[in-house]
Amino acid sequence: MSLVVRNVHRADAGVVDALAGYGVATVHEAQGRKGLLASYMRPIYRPAAIAGSAVTCSVAPGDNWMIHVAVEQCKAGDVLVVAPTSPCEDGYFGDLLATSLKARGVRGLIIDAGVRDIAVLTDMGFPVWSKAVYAQGTVKETLGDVNLPLVCAGALIQPGDVIVADDDGVCVVRREEAAAVAAAAAKREANETDKRARFEAGELGLDIYGMRERLAEKGLKYVDDPPQ
Amino acid sequence: MSLVVRNVHRADAGVVDALAGYGVATVHEAQGRKGLLASYMRPIYRPAAIAGSAVTCSVAPGDNWMIHVAVEQCKAGDVLVVAPTSPCEDGYFGDLLATSLKARGVRGLIIDAGVRDIAVLTDMGFPVWSKAVYAQGTVKETLGDVNLPLVCAGALIQPGDVIVADDDGVCVVRREEAAAVAAAAAKREANETDKRARFEAGELGLDIYGMRERLAEKGLKYVDDPPQ
Amino acid sequence: MSLVVRNVHRADAGVVDALAGYGVATVHEAQGRKGLLASYMRPIYRPAAIAGSAVTCSVAPGDNWMIHVAVEQCKAGDVLVVAPTSPCEDGYFGDLLATSLKARGVRGLIIDAGVRDIAVLTDMGFPVWSKAVYAQGTVKETLGDVNLPLVCAGALIQPGDVIVADDDGVCVVRREEAAAVAAAAAKREANETDKRARFEAGELGLDIYGMRERLAEKGLKYVDDPPQ
Amino acid sequence: MSLVVRNVHRADAGVVDALAGYGVATVHEAQGRKGLLASYMRPIYRPAAIAGSAVTCSVAPGDNWMIHVAVEQCKAGDVLVVAPTSPCEDGYFGDLLATSLKARGVRGLIIDAGVRDIAVLTDMGFPVWSKAVYAQGTVKETLGDVNLPLVCAGALIQPGDVIVADDDGVCVVRREEAAAVAAAAAKREANETDKRARFEAGELGLDIYGMRERLAEKGLKYVDDPPQ
Amino acid sequence: MSLVVRNVHRADAGVVDALAGYGVATVHEAQGRKGLLASYMRPIYRPAAIAGSAVTCSVAPGDNWMIHVAVEQCKAGDVLVVAPTSPCEDGYFGDLLATSLKARGVRGLIIDAGVRDIAVLTDMGFPVWSKAVYAQGTVKETLGDVNLPLVCAGALIQPGDVIVADDDGVCVVRREEAAAVAAAAAKREANETDKRARFEAGELGLDIYGMRERLAEKGLKYVDDPPQ
Amino acid sequence: MSLVVRNVHRADAGVVDALAGYGVATVHEAQGRKGLLASYMRPIYRPAAIAGSAVTCSVAPGDNWMIHVAVEQCKAGDVLVVAPTSPCEDGYFGDLLATSLKARGVRGLIIDAGVRDIAVLTDMGFPVWSKAVYAQGTVKETLGDVNLPLVCAGALIQPGDVIVADDDGVCVVRREEAAAVAAAAAKREANETDKRARFEAGELGLDIYGMRERLAEKGLKYVDDPPQ
Repeated sequence: MSLVVRNVHRADAGVVDALAGYGVATVHEAQGRKGLLASYMRPIYRPAAIAGSAVTCSVAPGDNWMIHVAVEQCKAGDVLVVAPTSPCEDGYFGDLLATSLKARGVRGLIIDAGVRDIAVLTDMGFPVWSKAVYAQGTVKETLGDVNLPLVCAGALIQPGDVIVADDDGVCVVRREEAAAVAAAAAKREANETDKRARFEAGELGLDIYGMRERLAEKGLKYVDDPPQ
Repeated sequence: MSLVVRNVHRADAGVVDALAGYGVATVHEAQGRKGLLASYMRPIYRPAAIAGSAVTCSVAPGDNWMIHVAVEQCKAGDVLVVAPTSPCEDGYFGDLLATSLKARGVRGLIIDAGVRDIAVLTDMGFPVWSKAVYAQGTVKETLGDVNLPLVCAGALIQPGDVIVADDDGVCVVRREEAAAVAAAAAKREANETDKRARFEAGELGLDIYGMRERLAEKGLKYVDDPPQ
Repeated sequence: MSLVVRNVHRADAGVVDALAGYGVATVHEAQGRKGLLASYMRPIYRPAAIAGSAVTCSVAPGDNWMIHVAVEQCKAGDVLVVAPTSPCEDGYFGDLLATSLKARGVRGLIIDAGVRDIAVLTDMGFPVWSKAVYAQGTVKETLGDVNLPLVCAGALIQPGDVIVADDDGVCVVRREEAAAVAAAAAKREANETDKRARFEAGELGLDIYGMRERLAEKGLKYVDDPPQ
Repeated sequence: MSLVVRNVHRADAGVVDALAGYGVATVHEAQGRKGLLASYMRPIYRPAAIAGSAVTCSVAPGDNWMIHVAVEQCKAGDVLVVAPTSPCEDGYFGDLLATSLKARGVRGLIIDAGVRDIAVLTDMGFPVWSKAVYAQGTVKETLGDVNLPLVCAGALIQPGDVIVADDDGVCVVRREEAAAVAAAAAKREANETDKRARFEAGELGLDIYGMRERLAEKGLKYVDDPPQ
Repeated sequence: MSLVVRNVHRADAGVVDALAGYGVATVHEAQGRKGLLASYMRPIYRPAAIAGSAVTCSVAPGDNWMIHVAVEQCKAGDVLVVAPTSPCEDGYFGDLLATSLKARGVRGLIIDAGVRDIAVLTDMGFPVWSKAVYAQGTVKETLGDVNLPLVCAGALIQPGDVIVADDDGVCVVRREEAAAVAAAAAKREANETDKRARFEAGELGLDIYGMRERLAEKGLKYVDDPPQ
Repeated sequence: MSLVVRNVHRADAGVVDALAGYGVATVHEAQGRKGLLASYMRPIYRPAAIAGSAVTCSVAPGDNWMIHVAVEQCKAGDVLVVAPTSPCEDGYFGDLLATSLKARGVRGLIIDAGVRDIAVLTDMGFPVWSKAVYAQGTVKETLGDVNLPLVCAGALIQPGDVIVADDDGVCVVRREEAAAVAAAAAKREANETDKRARFEAGELGLDIYGMRERLAEKGLKYVDDPPQ
C-alpha cells in the first residue's frame, strides 16, 4: 500500500526564513555538526540559497508519477524532497513540474537523482539540488509514498523538517529543533562577525583561539629550513 | 588497418537546425526515450545548445593524433565526436584544435575523455561536452579510425547521425530518423506550451493528465497527519 | 612528532608570476608533461588563474587544526596546499580562514578534501581548487606537519615548489626547475601564437605539422562512403 | 553531549534466527522491497550469512574510540553497526576488536567505512560487511553515540532492529515488524520451492506467471530474423 | 512498440567453443584489441570461463519483466546479455531465472546491472558477470526489446554475436568474424606457448622481441645509482 | 629523455623478510600511520602476503613497453611497482611478463592500472595488487622511466624502498627506515599477542586500555532504554 500524508506539521515560518539567512555551514555547525546530505548533491545554478519545510516523496527507479501526487501536498514556503527507492540518475523533474511548484510558492527541489531542462530552470530562478543532470525520461507506472520519513542522499528526512540549501549543499533541521538551531546559528554568526574583523586586521587564528599552548603540549615542534 | 571514411552522408541541414531548437530532453523523448550519452558528459560552459552532423573519431588512450586527421573530414555544421579505445581522461583537445574546427564551421566537440584550455574555449564560444577537464597532454603515435561507428559515453554513434547537445547533456538521433524525430519534437513542444500555461495558472498535473482514478486503482491512500 | 618547517626557500617572484601567465596546460607541457594533480581538483569559481609558492600542510581526516598553524607560515605570493592523511571530503576551510590568508597576501588554496562557504569565497575573490564542496565541519584534536613534502591529489609537492592553477586544474613545478620551465613555456607560447594564426586562416594540422607521410607509413587508408 | 543507550530492546531470538535462514533477497522482498543498505557494502569473505540485533555506533572520521564503548553494549546474538559522521574509508576495525566481539557472541560487523586484518578475520570466521578494505589506522580522540538511530550506507537503522546479511549484501528489518516479515518470508520461500521445481523441469516464467496476455496488451510483437 | 526477434543467426558451435578455450585477453588481442566490455563487469565467482551466442535483452530501470520474455528465445549454448535503458544496479536476476536458463542449456549471464542470490548461483555453477551484486527487487511493468542490437557496459552487442567471458572480464566477437578470430587466436596462442618457455628459461622480453635498438633510438639512457 | 637507473640500493634482505611477516596493518602503524597506497589497490587472489624491494617503472597510458625494460632491472626478492603517467585501467601485465618476473625471483607486482590473465596468475601463484582487472591490450610506442621516484596510487615510492602487501592492501617503507620499522613492528606485535589473549578471555578494551575516565571527562553519558 502507498500512502499520502496530508497536512503535515511545519516549522514556524519566521524560523524557517531565519535559517535561510544563516546558510548551510552555519546551521550544520549550530546543530552539532549533523544533518548534511551527501556532498554529491549540487545546485544547478549559483548562487542559490533557500530554506523551507520538507514535503517528502519516494519514487520507483525511472518513474516520476508520485511527484505529481506530491505537488498537491506542497504549500508556499515548502521544499520538495525526492528520493528513489533504489539508486537512479534519471531526469525525474523538468520545467513543467517546476512551473507547477513555482505556481504554488514552493522554494526549490532536493532530489537524490537526476534533473533536466536546467537551462529553463535557471532562467525561471527555480533552484534544484540534485545528484545528476540527465535528460533520461521516466514513466508513470509505480506508486511510492508522500510525506513519510525517507533517507535522501544519506540523511534521514521527516516531513515538516526544515531544509536549508545553498552553494555549499543541503542540510536538514528537525522541525522540533528548528527554533533552537536558529538561535544557536544567530549566536554563532555574531561571534564570526567579530572574528572576521580580527582576521582581516591580520591577527592569527593561533592567537585569536589561543591555540599555541595546546599545540606545544601535543608535541608540535618548529625548525628552520637550512640555507641552501 | 586504420580507416578514414570520406564524404559520409549528413542529415538535411534544416532538420538539424530544428533539432537544435528543441533541445536534448525533448528530442530524447520524441524519439522514444533513447539515444542519450552518459550523464557524466557535461558542457564546459553554460548555456550552450547545438546540433550538428557527427564526424566520429576513435583515438588510442593518451594519443590525439587522429583528431588532426578527423578535422579534415569536418564541414560547416558538423559536430566532432571523439571516443578513446580504452577509458582515458587526458586532455586530448585544446584551443589550437578548437581554432581549426571553428575555422571550418564546426559547431562543437563531444569527447568521452578530457579537454583543456577551457578558459580560452569559453572566450571563443566553442562548446565542448566532455567526461573531464584535465590538462594532461597526449602523444601522436597510434592510429585510430575516422567515420566508423563507435560507442561514445555508452551510446552508439554512426557518422552522419545528428548530435543534439545542451545544458542537459548529449543525445544522438539516427540520420535516417532525424526528420521524423524533428516532427515528433515539434508536436511535443506545442503540447508542452499549452500545458505550461495551465501549470502556471495553478492547475495540477493530477488533473491535467487525469491521474487520480488510476492512482486510486493502484492503491494510493490519503491520510491526515494527526494533531500534535 | 609533528613538525613545522619555517622559512622554506621560494622560487623567484618574477618567475612565479611568469608561470601564472602561461597557465596550467602550457606549463605542464613545457616541463615534459609532468606535475599535474588529479583531474578531480576543480576550482570553486571560473575564471581563476594563479601561481604561487607552496606552503604544504598535512591534516588528519576531519581535523583542520593544522591549517591554523600553516597560515602563520604563509607569506604574500604563497599558495596553501592541504592534503589529508587518509581520504576525506570534509569542509576543512571556509571564509574565516580565507580572510586570514587573504590578509597575508596568499593567492589561493589547493586542498585534496572539501571546502565550504564557497558563495562568500567567490564574492571575496579567493580562489580554491578542491576535491569536493561540502559543509561538513571539522575538529581540532590532532597534529600534522607543515612544510614537509606531501602527496596531494596524486602529485608530490615539496614546500617552495611553484603551484600553477587555472580553469584546467592544478600543476606543480619544482622550485629548482621553475626558471627553466618558465623559459620553455615562453618559447612554447610564442610558437602557439604563430600556429593559432595559421589554424584561423584554415590551414590544417596535418599540413602545419607535416603528418601526412607518417600517417600513411603507419597504414592509414582513405575510402569514400558509398552513395545511398 | 554523547550518549550511550543501554539495554535496548531486541527482537525475539527465534525470529532473528529464522530471518538468517531466509537471506537478504527474500527478506527484502518479504517486507515490501525496503531496508537494503547500499550495494557497495560487501562481505570480506564468502559464503557468509548471519542475522542479529543491531547495536548502533556513530564514529568521527578516522576515530574508532567509540567502537570500544559499543562493544560493552553488545550481547550474544547481536550485530554491531558502525557509521562515520562523514564519509571515511579508514580501517576502524581489526582482529583485536573482532576477538573481543567474538568473545561476547557477536555475530558480525556492518561498517560504512574500512576494515583491516581481513586475512585473520577470515581465519577466525568473523564476518564483516564493509565499504572498503583499508589498513589506515585511526585515533581515539572524539566521542560519538551508541544505540541512537543512525543512517548506515543509506539506510536508517535503529538499535534493536534486525540486521540480515549474506553474500548479496545487508538488509535491515524493523524490530516491531520482524515477526511479520519472518512469516512473509517463510511463505515466499515455500512458494519459490514450488516454482523452482517447475523451472527445473523446463517450464517458462511466461507460462508459470501467466504473462503472455498482459505482454501482448502492452504491445509486445514477435518477428523472425530474416534468412541470410 | 517493443520487439522480440526470433531465430537470430548464431555462429558455428565449434567456433564458439574454440573461442571459450582461448579466453578473453587472447580473443580481444586476436581481433585487433576491440570488443571489451567495461572493466566494472566482474564475475560472481572464480574461476569461470565460457563462450556462447548472445541473446540480447533491454530492460527498463528496476523492471525485469523482459528477462522472462528473453528466456524463451534462449537455446543451448547461448549467453543472455541484459542492459538497462538507463543506469541501474538493481538485482534483476536471481536463482529462479538461473534455474530456468540452466534448464535450457544457457551458459551464463552478462548484465550491466545487479544480480542477487549469488551464493546459490555459485553453488549451481551458473556464472554471471555483472556491474553490481545487489538484492534490490524489481517490478514487471514496462516492455523492452529482445534480440535487437544494444550497448552493454560500453560495447555494442548484436544478437548472435559471440560472447567470451572469463576471470578477466567480457569480450564480444562479431558473428561474421568469429571463425577468423578463432583462427587468429589459435595462432597467437601457439606463439605464446613458445614465448612462455623462453621466458621461463630466463630470457628477457628485450631480447625475445628485439627491443633494445628501438629503445635506444627513442632516447632511452642507462645510468648507475651512485654508491652511498 | 627517459632514464633507467641500474643497481639501486636495496634494504637488508632479513629486514625485508621480517616486514613481510608483520603485514600491512602492523607495519603501517609501526611507522607512524603512513605509507599506505590507496584502498582501491586490491590483490587478484587471497590470501597473499609479500614484501620486497621496489623497482619502479612509469608507463604511458595504454603502453607497456617500459615494463620489459624494468624486468631486466629486477632481482630475486624485488617487487615491481608500475604507475601510469595519467590514469589508466588497461591490462598492462599478463602471464608472459609474470613468467619472466617469476624466473628472476620477483615476488609480485604492484600496478596502479589493470592486469589480465588473472586465472593463470592465480594458478602460478604470482600475486598482483592492482587498480583493475581488465583485458585491454597495450602498445609499445612511448618511453618512461625505471627506478626514478614515482607516485603510485597516491603514495610516493622510491626505488629500493620496501613494499609490504597483503590482503589489506599495500604499504611502502622507506629503505633507510626499514630496520627501525621492523623493530617497532616486532614490539607492536608482541604487545598485540598479549592483548589478544585478554580480549579472548572477555576483557573489554575499555578496561584493558583504561579508557573509562577519559571518556567521562569528554562528556560521555549512559542512559537506559525506557521500557516499552
